[in-house]
Amino acid sequence: MTEIVLKSNTGFEWVSLVNPSIRELAQIAVQYNLHSASVHDCLEPEHLPKYEVIDEVAFMVLRAYDLGASKDGDTVQKLTNKIAFFIGKDFLVTIHRKDHEYLRVVRNKWRVSRKDEDNLALKISTDLYAAAMNTYEIPIKDAMELVERYEEAIFDNNEPATIIEKLYLLRRKASIYKKMLFLFNELLKKQMVGNEMLVSYFKDVLETGEKLQYYSDQLYEDTNNLLNIHLSLASHRTNEVMKVLTILSVFFLPLTFIVGIYGMNFKYMPELESVWGYSAVWLVMLVICVGIYFWFKSKGWLS
Amino acid sequence: MTEIVLKSNTGFEWVSLVNPSIRELAQIAVQYNLHSASVHDCLEPEHLPKYEVIDEVAFMVLRAYDLGASKDGDTVQKLTNKIAFFIGKDFLVTIHRKDHEYLRVVRNKWRVSRKDEDNLALKISTDLYAAAMNTYEIPIKDAMELVERYEEAIFDNNEPATIIEKLYLLRRKASIYKKMLFLFNELLKKQMVGNEMLVSYFKDVLETGEKLQYYSDQLYEDTNNLLNIHLSLASHRTNEVMKVLTILSVFFLPLTFIVGIYGMNFKYMPELESVWGYSAVWLVMLVICVGIYFWFKSKGWLS
Amino acid sequence: MTEIVLKSNTGFEWVSLVNPSIRELAQIAVQYNLHSASVHDCLEPEHLPKYEVIDEVAFMVLRAYDLGASKDGDTVQKLTNKIAFFIGKDFLVTIHRKDHEYLRVVRNKWRVSRKDEDNLALKISTDLYAAAMNTYEIPIKDAMELVERYEEAIFDNNEPATIIEKLYLLRRKASIYKKMLFLFNELLKKQMVGNEMLVSYFKDVLETGEKLQYYSDQLYEDTNNLLNIHLSLASHRTNEVMKVLTILSVFFLPLTFIVGIYGMNFKYMPELESVWGYSAVWLVMLVICVGIYFWFKSKGWLS
Amino acid sequence: MTEIVLKSNTGFEWVSLVNPSIRELAQIAVQYNLHSASVHDCLEPEHLPKYEVIDEVAFMVLRAYDLGASKDGDTVQKLTNKIAFFIGKDFLVTIHRKDHEYLRVVRNKWRVSRKDEDNLALKISTDLYAAAMNTYEIPIKDAMELVERYEEAIFDNNEPATIIEKLYLLRRKASIYKKMLFLFNELLKKQMVGNEMLVSYFKDVLETGEKLQYYSDQLYEDTNNLLNIHLSLASHRTNEVMKVLTILSVFFLPLTFIVGIYGMNFKYMPELESVWGYSAVWLVMLVICVGIYFWFKSKGWLS
Amino acid sequence: MTEIVLKSNTGFEWVSLVNPSIRELAQIAVQYNLHSASVHDCLEPEHLPKYEVIDEVAFMVLRAYDLGASKDGDTVQKLTNKIAFFIGKDFLVTIHRKDHEYLRVVRNKWRVSRKDEDNLALKISTDLYAAAMNTYEIPIKDAMELVERYEEAIFDNNEPATIIEKLYLLRRKASIYKKMLFLFNELLKKQMVGNEMLVSYFKDVLETGEKLQYYSDQLYEDTNNLLNIHLSLASHRTNEVMKVLTILSVFFLPLTFIVGIYGMNFKYMPELESVWGYSAVWLVMLVICVGIYFWFKSKGWLS
Ligand SMILES: [Mg+2]
Ligand SMILES: [Mg+2]
Ligand SMILES: [Mg+2]
Ligand SMILES: [Mg+2]
Ligand SMILES: [Mg+2]
Ligand SMILES: [Mg+2]
Ligand SMILES: [Mg+2]
Ligand SMILES: [Mg+2]
Ligand SMILES: [Mg+2]
Ligand SMILES: [Mg+2]
Ligand SMILES: [Mg+2]
Ligand SMILES: [Mg+2]
Ligand SMILES: [Mg+2]
Ligand SMILES: [Mg+2]
Ligand SMILES: [Mg+2]
Ligand SMILES: [Mg+2]
Ligand SMILES: [Mg+2]
Ligand SMILES: [Mg+2]
Ligand SMILES: [Mg+2]
Ligand SMILES: [Mg+2]
Ligand SMILES: [Mg+2]
Ligand SMILES: [Mg+2]
Ligand SMILES: [Mg+2]
Ligand SMILES: [Mg+2]
Ligand SMILES: [Mg+2]
Ligand SMILES: [Mg+2]
Ligand SMILES: [Mg+2]
Ligand SMILES: [Mg+2]
Ligand SMILES: [Mg+2]
Ligand SMILES: [Mg+2]
Ligand SMILES: [Mg+2]
Repeated sequence: MTEIVLKSNTGFEWVSLVNPSIRELAQIAVQYNLHSASVHDCLEPEHLPKYEVIDEVAFMVLRAYDLGASKDGDTVQKLTNKIAFFIGKDFLVTIHRKDHEYLRVVRNKWRVSRKDEDNLALKISTDLYAAAMNTYEIPIKDAMELVERYEEAIFDNNEPATIIEKLYLLRRKASIYKKMLFLFNELLKKQMVGNEMLVSYFKDVLETGEKLQYYSDQLYEDTNNLLNIHLSLASHRTNEVMKVLTILSVFFLPLTFIVGIYGMNFKYMPELESVWGYSAVWLVMLVICVGIYFWFKSKGWLS
Repeated sequence: MTEIVLKSNTGFEWVSLVNPSIRELAQIAVQYNLHSASVHDCLEPEHLPKYEVIDEVAFMVLRAYDLGASKDGDTVQKLTNKIAFFIGKDFLVTIHRKDHEYLRVVRNKWRVSRKDEDNLALKISTDLYAAAMNTYEIPIKDAMELVERYEEAIFDNNEPATIIEKLYLLRRKASIYKKMLFLFNELLKKQMVGNEMLVSYFKDVLETGEKLQYYSDQLYEDTNNLLNIHLSLASHRTNEVMKVLTILSVFFLPLTFIVGIYGMNFKYMPELESVWGYSAVWLVMLVICVGIYFWFKSKGWLS
Repeated sequence: MTEIVLKSNTGFEWVSLVNPSIRELAQIAVQYNLHSASVHDCLEPEHLPKYEVIDEVAFMVLRAYDLGASKDGDTVQKLTNKIAFFIGKDFLVTIHRKDHEYLRVVRNKWRVSRKDEDNLALKISTDLYAAAMNTYEIPIKDAMELVERYEEAIFDNNEPATIIEKLYLLRRKASIYKKMLFLFNELLKKQMVGNEMLVSYFKDVLETGEKLQYYSDQLYEDTNNLLNIHLSLASHRTNEVMKVLTILSVFFLPLTFIVGIYGMNFKYMPELESVWGYSAVWLVMLVICVGIYFWFKSKGWLS
Repeated sequence: MTEIVLKSNTGFEWVSLVNPSIRELAQIAVQYNLHSASVHDCLEPEHLPKYEVIDEVAFMVLRAYDLGASKDGDTVQKLTNKIAFFIGKDFLVTIHRKDHEYLRVVRNKWRVSRKDEDNLALKISTDLYAAAMNTYEIPIKDAMELVERYEEAIFDNNEPATIIEKLYLLRRKASIYKKMLFLFNELLKKQMVGNEMLVSYFKDVLETGEKLQYYSDQLYEDTNNLLNIHLSLASHRTNEVMKVLTILSVFFLPLTFIVGIYGMNFKYMPELESVWGYSAVWLVMLVICVGIYFWFKSKGWLS
Repeated sequence: MTEIVLKSNTGFEWVSLVNPSIRELAQIAVQYNLHSASVHDCLEPEHLPKYEVIDEVAFMVLRAYDLGASKDGDTVQKLTNKIAFFIGKDFLVTIHRKDHEYLRVVRNKWRVSRKDEDNLALKISTDLYAAAMNTYEIPIKDAMELVERYEEAIFDNNEPATIIEKLYLLRRKASIYKKMLFLFNELLKKQMVGNEMLVSYFKDVLETGEKLQYYSDQLYEDTNNLLNIHLSLASHRTNEVMKVLTILSVFFLPLTFIVGIYGMNFKYMPELESVWGYSAVWLVMLVICVGIYFWFKSKGWLS
């Protein structure tokens, strides 16, 4: 679907293509003289973010976070959607598969704004760029809250049974957010070169991008640390349990052996006949227990 | 609350806004012709440190350590407070939520000082900058002492039960101090460009910043190493305990089996009838013990 | 075998040598005045990728993925095949051991194309370069799917018994793909210097190279993470099993000891004569069980 | 204590201050016109190495290894001592807390040498610098020998019980040596700029510095690796011991159960009455043992 | 021993000193006007590789792999031998402790070659340099084959008992090869500056150096990974063994307790008198086994 979103008095045009057919795309490519290599990139849904300028037309591919992404997606393709721009002197062509909320907001903002500004193509595309980048804010903030909840649960020892899988998935997502936001900032820095008249415009967006990148770095680091500390704590707790078993076993091994001895049915066992035999066995066992107790104490294993 | 802290003979003014209403802020923005993007940043309590110059007015956001921060805070927001400056030719506007001790000290110092110096805005803002940075000294020193105490406890094997959680929290805090001090030093280096007349002023502050950064790096590294060594030691000690169990078990497993055999109630068990049966069993058990002892010895498991 | 693939109207010649004898190679070296050091490199089957220009003839060694490579190959030599180019003003010499599918495709494409273009040597060699690089796409994509399958299996706890070996091998392969694609991109960047007239040609190939490098990085990271998480999960699950044993043991150790006591055959054991003896033992054992239960509960080991 | 060590014919003076009072220091500061900020740094015993030039006077702070440092010191402050220099055109002021052997050696060397050379301040200070740096050689060499001894002990399995603590302390020390030698080399490189006439002088010292840095890097790495390998080996050995226990247990668990069965006192147990009962039980136990043996063999657990 | 290896028509002289006395060295130093600092470096057997130019004489120290090195050497000193060069306009002085095979080969090559070439000092020294560097090829290739053999053994579970020590030693050696080859390549790059007329000569050697560095990097990485995977596999296998023990124990713990109960000798135990007592006990034990079986099955512990 091809739509002309905006037509300014100065001759500027913003054309939006939503899920265009190859024919629609070809038509636009001819009309605005777009480079065929770039047009080809538009058709590849898995394309990673890029920025290039050919014959004074800038071509940009971005990947915005897909708010409708499945909870357990863990690849760039499952978590993000592509959006492509052609930024010319007096035109802007935007191409995307579906129409997302963040795109609608930008369209509505510019439809009602002054239509005689300079550099409309750059300004609008930077707005779209910022909107696409900001789609990562919600999943990052959500993930950070989740991590904080998991952290508390782990130290209170009531984490869910699948915590390892959950943290592993979160770390993968954080890794993708990090990568995407890194690319966003790289692209913007590339675009700033040669467009110095809009530097304050770009800087503002870049600052937000760096903040988001900082948070995604932090998220990755926190998730990784939490996963490691969970494994350490779990192993530490099992160790504690096994130490108790071990200590108890050391007490009961010789005792159970001794009572086994006097459970034997030999005809000639003098101890069994003695009046003091039973009491003597109890005494021996007591002495053994006390001996082990002090041995362990001296080793510091009873703390 | 808006307060004029200082008015010099040379026309310089220092205005301090403590927890200003939006109206107060707007008024000041108009009066000093402050850039709206910067004013907007002032209102965001979670803003990370930044430095930018717009129309010859420098805008700086810093985050000082909050001495009243909760002991278990572990995020930039919980551990630090924002302070923002507008540094003009002949004015300085400082904006903060609460009035902190370190700010009061700087205000008092300048109230009594010569009011006809050059570059008052830069000098005062650098003083505030140094004061904000120095707020990190106390928590870092405290944390380093804590780490030293934990280290001793860990090697004496009387660390608190929640040592893992404690070290994990300390490492997170160290990570935040590192990041903040890194940003402090970055900002100062940016500010030094173009203000060469005050280079000795800046260098002194930068040196302190680099010292603090070195200590926070060290703190992070030490905490991390101590956490790892604690886990290693704990697992090593449990292993020692289990080795004792294992060795004892290997002795008692066959012995307990043997006494079990002669505890059976079969009618026809020739050994039971023998006069030497009981003594023979003791002999067999002794031989087994000696055999296991030498087997273990040859394997080096009895060290 | 020496074959002249192409002869353009402009005097350009493409000579392809498949598994040439030393004599054939020497002949071509004389004919095109190729540097002896480079010719020597051609004969070394293990040569790593390189690019150098001597006397205006560019010499390039590439290593393409060998689609017929054994499944458990894990070295550069077993997984990849060498291909060497000499790129002159008006000639292109390509040398390889075997004739691969990807080479045939490029040959066929150029046989039918216009033969009067400029820079044919560079264009064809870049095509061959791209074809060689693209041979990595299939093994990387296959490996990524395998990793995804393993991931699911690991979290469903039905991974194959040799999963560790399999992931270790995948990680080694990923390490080699990473290295090779890194070298591909490095070579192309070197070649771009001085050939600015073909920059759009090169950029397109470079972009594909960077995408492949991104995927191989991701593959390495994912394989490594999956290996670690598998080991963590396996150890975590064994810990869970052992905790159950430990807890059960702590219950049965004292019980088995008690029934052992009253299995002893002493003549004088008053408890054995008592009418309530048997019931009392049951009671004592019940009390012990309840005691242990609450002790464990208080320690949080029964969650 | 203020001492004039050297007075050359050319008007050069070397003044040495050992543990000066504030008054002595102030006097010297006035006499040589030293910058107050630098003088202030002299008084701080914890100051990290630095180099700065103010008004043509170079100020340098170094930290030499303290040969009398406590064996278990593990901080910059406990292991090293500060020495400060002011290097002017025709004066050298050296300030230190105590008088160390390495300082005495340099003083004696220059007292007997030609006193009419050029650049005396720089030459002497570089000598002192080299002497301070060389104090690290002995502790590094000692530590390397210790590591070699520990390594042998660990692989012979007769390491001391506190080996973990010892290696941990060594690694901390190595970390400090690394940092200090890194700073030494950084300072010298700074000082070389602008003093090109003495480049061969400096280069010689720098080479020694880089050698020491290489050894301290190596020490850190070796200590770290040895600590890790010790933990791995210890855990590996415990595993071996436990495997023996496990295998023995699997044999004795069913055997002990079986003899337990026929130790029961039921009135009606037909097996007990049988003439072949006892022999049959032995046969069954033998069969079980053989079965387990082959099961284990097939699993490869008996290697 | 001083030997004049070569004397060209153009006045060039190559002097070789094998294990020279201090007097011999001093004599040569005077004759060729060698810098005393460099001569001093010649006498230090532990000197690390370096390159420096003083008064148009280049001085180079290299460390070649010592083919006669002890198998368990793991330091730069034990594994490598020093060789030093003075490279002048019309002389080359080479100094080494022993006469090695690789030196003899180079001497013989040049003795029979044209003696009127330009730049003989540089060409010969580069040849010696290449020969010294190539001494690393054999130990690296040997180590790589060893690693491949160990890898197979580890996955077949028949590795030698001292595999950890062996891999640890290999990793240390790899670390030294890496460092030495890194220094070789660094030195050559330094030497290339100012000797552009021999660039193709140098580039060829550098390429070999970079290949060797790549292989030594790979060796280090492979050894490290193999060590880690061995430890992981060993721990994984022990875990498997212990899981079997654990599961068997859980079956036998209650069974052994039950047969213990009816082994008690109380006078009044109604079950013992019952005709069905014995069968009932078997039934109860069967029920317990089945119960445990299904409990384990539901937990997925019987896969
Ligand atoms: Mg990942
Ligand atoms: Mg990543
Ligand atoms: Mg970080
Ligand atoms: Mg971060
Ligand atoms: Mg960690
Ligand atoms: Mg880790
Ligand atoms: Mg961290
Ligand atoms: Mg953190
Ligand atoms: Mg951080
Ligand atoms: Mg660090
Ligand atoms: Mg550090
Ligand atoms: Mg460390
Ligand atoms: Mg560590
Ligand atoms: Mg690898
Ligand atoms: Mg690699
Ligand atoms: Mg990566
Ligand atoms: Mg990546
Ligand atoms: Mg990762
Ligand atoms: Mg990991
Ligand atoms: Mg440390
Ligand atoms: Mg350090
Ligand atoms: Mg290192
Ligand atoms: Mg090193
Ligand atoms: Mg290492
Ligand atoms: Mg390691
Ligand atoms: Mg090493
Ligand atoms: Mg190394
Ligand atoms: Mg590598
Ligand atoms: Mg690796
Ligand atoms: Mg690894
Ligand atoms: Mg690790």
